[in-house]
Amino acid sequence: MMKAFRFTKARTLALVAAVVLTTVALAATATQEGVWEIGPRMLPASVDVSDVMRESLLNTPAPDVEAARNFVPETIEQWKALISERGERAAAGARALANGLSVVVEQESIDGVNVHRVTPAEIDPRHENHLFVYLHGGAYLFNGGEAGTAEAVLIAARAKMLVLSVDYRMPPDHPAPAAINDVVAVWENLLNSRPATSLALGGTSAGGGLTMASVHRFKELDLDLPGALYLGTPGSDVNKVGDSRYIMEGIDRLLVAWDAGGAQGMSMYAADYDHNHPYVSPIYGDFEGFPPSYVISGTRDLMLSDAVRTHRKLRAAGVDADLHVYEGQSHGDYAAVPNSPESHEHYAELNAFLLKHLER
Amino acid sequence: MMKAFRFTKARTLALVAAVVLTTVALAATATQEGVWEIGPRMLPASVDVSDVMRESLLNTPAPDVEAARNFVPETIEQWKALISERGERAAAGARALANGLSVVVEQESIDGVNVHRVTPAEIDPRHENHLFVYLHGGAYLFNGGEAGTAEAVLIAARAKMLVLSVDYRMPPDHPAPAAINDVVAVWENLLNSRPATSLALGGTSAGGGLTMASVHRFKELDLDLPGALYLGTPGSDVNKVGDSRYIMEGIDRLLVAWDAGGAQGMSMYAADYDHNHPYVSPIYGDFEGFPPSYVISGTRDLMLSDAVRTHRKLRAAGVDADLHVYEGQSHGDYAAVPNSPESHEHYAELNAFLLKHLER
Repeated sequence: MMKAFRFTKARTLALVAAVVLTTVALAATATQEGVWEIGPRMLPASVDVSDVMRESLLNTPAPDVEAARNFVPETIEQWKALISERGERAAAGARALANGLSVVVEQESIDGVNVHRVTPAEIDPRHENHLFVYLHGGAYLFNGGEAGTAEAVLIAARAKMLVLSVDYRMPPDHPAPAAINDVVAVWENLLNSRPATSLALGGTSAGGGLTMASVHRFKELDLDLPGALYLGTPGSDVNKVGDSRYIMEGIDRLLVAWDAGGAQGMSMYAADYDHNHPYVSPIYGDFEGFPPSYVISGTRDLMLSDAVRTHRKLRAAGVDADLHVYEGQSHGDYAAVPNSPESHEHYAELNAFLLKHLER
Repeated sequence: MMKAFRFTKARTLALVAAVVLTTVALAATATQEGVWEIGPRMLPASVDVSDVMRESLLNTPAPDVEAARNFVPETIEQWKALISERGERAAAGARALANGLSVVVEQESIDGVNVHRVTPAEIDPRHENHLFVYLHGGAYLFNGGEAGTAEAVLIAARAKMLVLSVDYRMPPDHPAPAAINDVVAVWENLLNSRPATSLALGGTSAGGGLTMASVHRFKELDLDLPGALYLGTPGSDVNKVGDSRYIMEGIDRLLVAWDAGGAQGMSMYAADYDHNHPYVSPIYGDFEGFPPSYVISGTRDLMLSDAVRTHRKLRAAGVDADLHVYEGQSHGDYAAVPNSPESHEHYAELNAFLLKHLER
């Protein structure tokens, strides 16, 4: 009975599809409540990408899902040790990047929140009155302190604008909503001296998710909203929801798999919050009135679905939102391989978007 | 030596990534010239989609790659039989769709080219002077005659505008550039009575690819270009190039696999042309001066890479191009499941794009 029903549905779909498209066959095999078993396949390095990206892909071993999972800490102490070890390496990397790009990074405090003022060698006169408020990525666990300034340095250097990188509090010690509260504190302080429309807000990965959650919170507090948002492959959902969380497992060379650190970080961050609460899964918030938003992802990005779901929610709310998806890119490859032409292209597009939407 | 080199590269990438992102591990396994072996996985039905799409996915058996490949004809006679059989079913479907939406489809001839004039029950006054020139999909093999009018009917009904569907010649009897020549003949005729900027050009799958190839040809002939293009998950490349051609194998429920009909159709179409010639793989053409373009794909689309590569080429050429990617959608699901909210959303977005860019 069940089988006959499914066959009929499959035939109906095939007929409809044949009307419009190229379908050759929708062959029927067993299925369990819509869960498909997807077979193994060979995936060559992407072809229609820059030489830099292709070389990088050719030199990357196939992501090892099991090894990545086994690498995840089990105790809070192990997490803190890993966070500290990675933080030191990342801080060294960020410092090297800043030195190489002649960007000055200065630590400050704004209403008790640690921040870094990131100043490029030259400010574009068109950005003279602009400030980019940057929220770093790292699964809400990594990149505290100077480690979180790397992409802020890139944005400052590429767009030739001043960036303020917020060193928001994170788990294990400070789960949500500490990070959002820190962003709100900085935001309220900035509004004393600058119009919101001259300010951009954004970041990559958890930084993109925190950007969306913060705007939800700004709306609750009736604060003026930014002139533009940068949602770099944003972590929009702490649940394992989204095709790409499954499809890109073992394909995304940077995240490797959802439960290889990202899921655990998101859970520690959400803590007592319902996982569908817009503070921790901002995709479930109301996007009415959101500022113009720039969204980027890639064809190997474990978070591609987060990006496209966010883009659609924004569009459905009537927001001026642009989606960019790059061939061959895993989660945040545009920042991880900053010397690639794709990285330059992305930050040039982002800069054009900011120049278009930020008030002079 | 080789192994040590790769380990170093992997470590370098991991370091850079850790700086910016959430990476937990880039574990090293053997790789052969950048070809990765991707393991099997379970893929549940998409969650953050409409009830109609979710129900449709829940009732679709897992795509069977082997069965789809075995379904591909081997001789020209077998191809013609399949084309004819599918054409009859698709024509019946298109007629049913037109009747259900009160759209009138009339066959005509323009300078020797068979076309269908597709008239909705009501024309939006804002589209009074507009015409949508539609090019159907079907791997350059299927949907000749009335079968090719289904999406034209949808566009006419949803945008409330007049559509002219071009029944271009196809292989096996008429490989490239017959189809392009037919589009050019119709285009030149239309330019006698209408400004090009009042005309949209576009279609889905092969229709999107043919749209791009035709614009390359218009430029060669110094013909006025359309006011806007619709590139629905366009077949931009007849080569097996693009991550999604590999990643989405057995995941795209409509195309199933690249070599399950699509590749064969594209090869017959290309015939004597070099497979990198812009007439058959329009992605390799020059996009300078292309009209504003609307591009759509999905997170399960075998041609996702075609769409995003096209979007990037357009953006790099300074073209006003919008990319839309829908969660859970296989190749052209927006047209295959026309009663879904996603389908309505897509055609509303497309209509807004046309209203913005076509000259009144």
